[in-house]
Amino acid sequence: MAGNTFGDIFKISTFGESHGKAIGVILDGCPSNIEIDEAFIQSELDKRRPGQSKITTQRKESDTAEILSGVFEGKSTGTPIAILIPNEDQRSKDYSHISDKYRPSHADYTYQMKYGIRDYRGGGRSSARETAARVAAGAIAKLFLKKQGIEIFAHVSGVGTIEAPNIDIADLKTLLDTRESNIARCADPATANEMITFIDSVRKDGDTVGGRISATIRHVPVGLGEPVFDKLHADLAKAMMGINAVHGFEYGSGFEGSKLRGTEHNDIFMTEGDKILTRTNYSGGIQGGISNGMDITFKVAFKPVATIMRDQDTLNQAGEATTISGKGRHDPCVVPRAVIIVESMAALVVADHLLKYNAYSSL
Amino acid sequence: MAGNTFGDIFKISTFGESHGKAIGVILDGCPSNIEIDEAFIQSELDKRRPGQSKITTQRKESDTAEILSGVFEGKSTGTPIAILIPNEDQRSKDYSHISDKYRPSHADYTYQMKYGIRDYRGGGRSSARETAARVAAGAIAKLFLKKQGIEIFAHVSGVGTIEAPNIDIADLKTLLDTRESNIARCADPATANEMITFIDSVRKDGDTVGGRISATIRHVPVGLGEPVFDKLHADLAKAMMGINAVHGFEYGSGFEGSKLRGTEHNDIFMTEGDKILTRTNYSGGIQGGISNGMDITFKVAFKPVATIMRDQDTLNQAGEATTISGKGRHDPCVVPRAVIIVESMAALVVADHLLKYNAYSSL
Amino acid sequence: MAGNTFGDIFKISTFGESHGKAIGVILDGCPSNIEIDEAFIQSELDKRRPGQSKITTQRKESDTAEILSGVFEGKSTGTPIAILIPNEDQRSKDYSHISDKYRPSHADYTYQMKYGIRDYRGGGRSSARETAARVAAGAIAKLFLKKQGIEIFAHVSGVGTIEAPNIDIADLKTLLDTRESNIARCADPATANEMITFIDSVRKDGDTVGGRISATIRHVPVGLGEPVFDKLHADLAKAMMGINAVHGFEYGSGFEGSKLRGTEHNDIFMTEGDKILTRTNYSGGIQGGISNGMDITFKVAFKPVATIMRDQDTLNQAGEATTISGKGRHDPCVVPRAVIIVESMAALVVADHLLKYNAYSSL
Amino acid sequence: MAGNTFGDIFKISTFGESHGKAIGVILDGCPSNIEIDEAFIQSELDKRRPGQSKITTQRKESDTAEILSGVFEGKSTGTPIAILIPNEDQRSKDYSHISDKYRPSHADYTYQMKYGIRDYRGGGRSSARETAARVAAGAIAKLFLKKQGIEIFAHVSGVGTIEAPNIDIADLKTLLDTRESNIARCADPATANEMITFIDSVRKDGDTVGGRISATIRHVPVGLGEPVFDKLHADLAKAMMGINAVHGFEYGSGFEGSKLRGTEHNDIFMTEGDKILTRTNYSGGIQGGISNGMDITFKVAFKPVATIMRDQDTLNQAGEATTISGKGRHDPCVVPRAVIIVESMAALVVADHLLKYNAYSSL
Repeated sequence: MAGNTFGDIFKISTFGESHGKAIGVILDGCPSNIEIDEAFIQSELDKRRPGQSKITTQRKESDTAEILSGVFEGKSTGTPIAILIPNEDQRSKDYSHISDKYRPSHADYTYQMKYGIRDYRGGGRSSARETAARVAAGAIAKLFLKKQGIEIFAHVSGVGTIEAPNIDIADLKTLLDTRESNIARCADPATANEMITFIDSVRKDGDTVGGRISATIRHVPVGLGEPVFDKLHADLAKAMMGINAVHGFEYGSGFEGSKLRGTEHNDIFMTEGDKILTRTNYSGGIQGGISNGMDITFKVAFKPVATIMRDQDTLNQAGEATTISGKGRHDPCVVPRAVIIVESMAALVVADHLLKYNAYSSL
Repeated sequence: MAGNTFGDIFKISTFGESHGKAIGVILDGCPSNIEIDEAFIQSELDKRRPGQSKITTQRKESDTAEILSGVFEGKSTGTPIAILIPNEDQRSKDYSHISDKYRPSHADYTYQMKYGIRDYRGGGRSSARETAARVAAGAIAKLFLKKQGIEIFAHVSGVGTIEAPNIDIADLKTLLDTRESNIARCADPATANEMITFIDSVRKDGDTVGGRISATIRHVPVGLGEPVFDKLHADLAKAMMGINAVHGFEYGSGFEGSKLRGTEHNDIFMTEGDKILTRTNYSGGIQGGISNGMDITFKVAFKPVATIMRDQDTLNQAGEATTISGKGRHDPCVVPRAVIIVESMAALVVADHLLKYNAYSSL
Repeated sequence: MAGNTFGDIFKISTFGESHGKAIGVILDGCPSNIEIDEAFIQSELDKRRPGQSKITTQRKESDTAEILSGVFEGKSTGTPIAILIPNEDQRSKDYSHISDKYRPSHADYTYQMKYGIRDYRGGGRSSARETAARVAAGAIAKLFLKKQGIEIFAHVSGVGTIEAPNIDIADLKTLLDTRESNIARCADPATANEMITFIDSVRKDGDTVGGRISATIRHVPVGLGEPVFDKLHADLAKAMMGINAVHGFEYGSGFEGSKLRGTEHNDIFMTEGDKILTRTNYSGGIQGGISNGMDITFKVAFKPVATIMRDQDTLNQAGEATTISGKGRHDPCVVPRAVIIVESMAALVVADHLLKYNAYSSL
Repeated sequence: MAGNTFGDIFKISTFGESHGKAIGVILDGCPSNIEIDEAFIQSELDKRRPGQSKITTQRKESDTAEILSGVFEGKSTGTPIAILIPNEDQRSKDYSHISDKYRPSHADYTYQMKYGIRDYRGGGRSSARETAARVAAGAIAKLFLKKQGIEIFAHVSGVGTIEAPNIDIADLKTLLDTRESNIARCADPATANEMITFIDSVRKDGDTVGGRISATIRHVPVGLGEPVFDKLHADLAKAMMGINAVHGFEYGSGFEGSKLRGTEHNDIFMTEGDKILTRTNYSGGIQGGISNGMDITFKVAFKPVATIMRDQDTLNQAGEATTISGKGRHDPCVVPRAVIIVESMAALVVADHLLKYNAYSSL
């Protein structure tokens, strides 16, 4: 109920604060005999870790994952896989100036009121550091899904008012290379350059900016998702809205689709050899909450990072007016590092629904 | 796992198809000694029921709720409250022409593939009729929340490209009267007229159109919501995305907020007497996943209804090309009736989180 | 959390009080395309219903089940199956004399203290009537398990100090006939006669007596059950301890096994053709929480029914000393009717674990 | 669903194998501001650890707990408390002789069949080592319950056919001292001596023996437990049956109670000052699944340890007959070390139900 667990069958529980000894995750329900490629897990973590480019926070953390259980001779055993990620760069002194102040648009105030105590040295559980645990588990979900032929791809499709053109994801390998070739993690090189220049100017300004991530899940079998409350897109929405700073989620035609007419929006069925497809994909690969075999598409909106390098008015715990000064090392824009978190959470949702589907598929 | 249950402590399980004997709901975990005002429950159902105006489906269902258990001498006993809503107007013949055809952008194809069987007489569980059960349970959630001083208000803020101006919700009673005085359920009378004219023209055209609903939850205590996966807005998102036809969810600043800078977006704390408030409310009343006492605001996007009064190409179960003709009685635009569903699901989310919060609040 | 739901994938939620309009159950997660044999469901309910013999309560209830949803053309559709069992013989007046008195060893006192309100006309949710809903759902679980070749058999193995000899369950069909041929539901005819005579004498004495039920589950595939908290026998234990009046559960060698030595108790593996068996079955068909393919065996102890036809000292709600007189129509011994409840709960546990197992079995 | 999580609100998830790097636990849902007394946690672990006396296994593990998260300045913060217990004495070579053999009455065969892979170096998750994680979390549950005035006491009440007399638990402190003064952990000194002599003789014989643990929970408020499936004793049963080697559970009058008549068994209500008590306590402190304020009493039966220092016939993974020789360091009788596991699991159950109760108690 305290909500540090996600998923029903393929299930993760995360722990740890930014300034404690370690963060980590238990993945319970991973099928046995999955090859656990530790290098892949680390490469995924490297895409999220701080300090990777000039437009991310300069905080240094190697984010090295150590598997403590659940893997024997390189393969999952079906028992819980615990992964530990020690905290290295804790630098508590950076936070001493804010120990009794509520940072604007952070969770300091709500934590203090909810728990009556908080680890003021960082964001506690609201620190984006917690998401490293999700990425580690998400990497294993991806290894499992890959065996089933399912692929997930996300990239930065918007920063501030900059918007990338729609991407054709037919050639995923090339797209991934393009995305990883630029520090904005946008799959369109021209837009990426524009984004980088913009984020860097925002950073120099001591400010931050929000952005958007678009994602596609390919080759999902027909039938995943449950028809009422646990619609596949409802679980994706919950997964994405649970990522720090996310303020919006849409799938398929999304908000723009709500402006259309039925005659424009309906996806007409067609066949392509043995396969049943739809001519268009406003449904975003999901109909009635259940995957229909088309690409699953969704978009996620991230607010600007709340920590800015400016002086701001605020209150302290006594409720007195005070000023807080931005210090420390923070991201001017969170979306380049969040791409991998979006992919990880999507992988966890699909893995969970795939196992739910399997519970019935062999009957 | 089959996903017909929503909530953890204040929990509902719904059942029933549009063309079976009845639909209904079990509400488990309702506190005891809540006065169960049956007239209020019915009045809520009346806002959702079909046939209420010229811009809704003409299908006739009185949607009369019968409480079977959990209430004694007008009060909840703490045991499961079962509510039955018989199906009256089943008219199965309306659907005979589509028994082996996949209606475009409906769930016929995905159901057939997932279950290998489906009740072709209607949408089965994907019928919006299922939401009547949610409204009945949501009405009880509202009765519970009202005792705690919490209020929920939603209205139609957009239809097609028509957009209502922002509404000041300070005077909720008047707003509610305004909303209920027009069949579009928009709290801005001028926009309401525009919407009604537009929907009616769409209807005459045999077409449908999408729309948007905006909602506010007031007087939520500080501290509701869990910091990681079960953020208050993540659970609201899941609740809303689980409503039929919903394609998008945003809270607070939403998608537009992702275009802003931190200096614009941060909500500065201030005091008003003993209370701690924020000058702006881009956070939408939730910080770090936890309510901060400000109004909780969110918006939901609905796609156009898939059933149109036109001929459409499609496939039958054998995978052969065929044509499907729109017949029957369907909504040209779903949002006027969906307002109450949005409120109901919001009430269920808040009631559940309030009980979770209470588990610790007395310690 | 209010605990009216049982199971994870194959999941039931029950509702209703003994003196309300109806009791019932929603079964969610039943696989699709199971033939729902309504006559079988009714025959199962008939084994539990009151008034079936001179040694059961004379309360009259036909316990007629009505399926409201989830079944189309005789087959399950994969959607929730709601079953309604109307209450017929409510005779509220029988209970008026106890409206403010706490019946000894009943739940009146604990309900009043927990909820601050109770339906004094009967036991509320603590009435054994609630178990009819479990039997209806358990019957469907049996239909599902039967397709998988799994069979469940329980009978009355003890009443008071009378103990039946161990039963060879190789010929289940004959055993079942024997059991159903006597009103004690003991599969050993001689012991059955002894039990019937004894229960009848207890009844005439205005008293009640406890008893024991032994059960066997056959042809369970190897691999059901989870190794740590959700051991197959742990879930069976919870299921059985959740039945009214149950005070003890043991499986395999049980309490007597705790007196043995390892050299006596270890089950030595052997082969029989292709199959791996054990020479003895002290493990009761479960090793490390996981089924090993041998017969699963367990025993359940029921306390004597608390309602006796005698005057008893007690307290009223004001805490004042008073006397309560036994009236009404109650069972002198609950085990003959409880046999089918034990089988039903066992079926629900195995069906749930079978689906959990299937989630991985096809990978 | 893989069942490594226990509890709903006060919830633990454990991980780790006997021969991996570490075992551990995440406790999620612990209230904030509980003083986390690490010395107490360690003292609890010391009561379970191997090598503590001549009648326990000589395997050496210090079982040192390290808290990784969720505690700030000595107090719980309301966030997940992760505890790591490194494995020190792994000695894999001890197990090489059994890598492809199924040990009788162990989980080797069922694991191999369920997962298709197993860590043959030890019992994997079926190793009793996993229970150290439960004890660490259970210690925190006890710290929480102690603040609420709730106490838990268990001791060894039976070994083989040796049975301790009933214990008066009025003076818990003295009882605890008595129990801890002998290595059998029986609160009756004379019986303890008898047990020790017997276990030691069994050990010298290369054999093992089963036993029984009796437990009492005191000062539980009236109202804990849910009336239908989640009866307080049903959750205690599941908790206890989930402990390795447990084959039976009974509460209150238990199996013996099923031989009694209602006139003997009913607990008559009485007052003692303001308090409502019962003259007898056959109900074991629970009526209708809900605590009634009396002492909660239950008993747990443990089978003899399966690893014996004898040659036994068995099969290897190829299904061929072979012989297995007992080696290594194992317990001749598990109950002296299991006392603290029983207490820990009981503490987890009560803590969870207390929080569930609190969710409603302030309304």
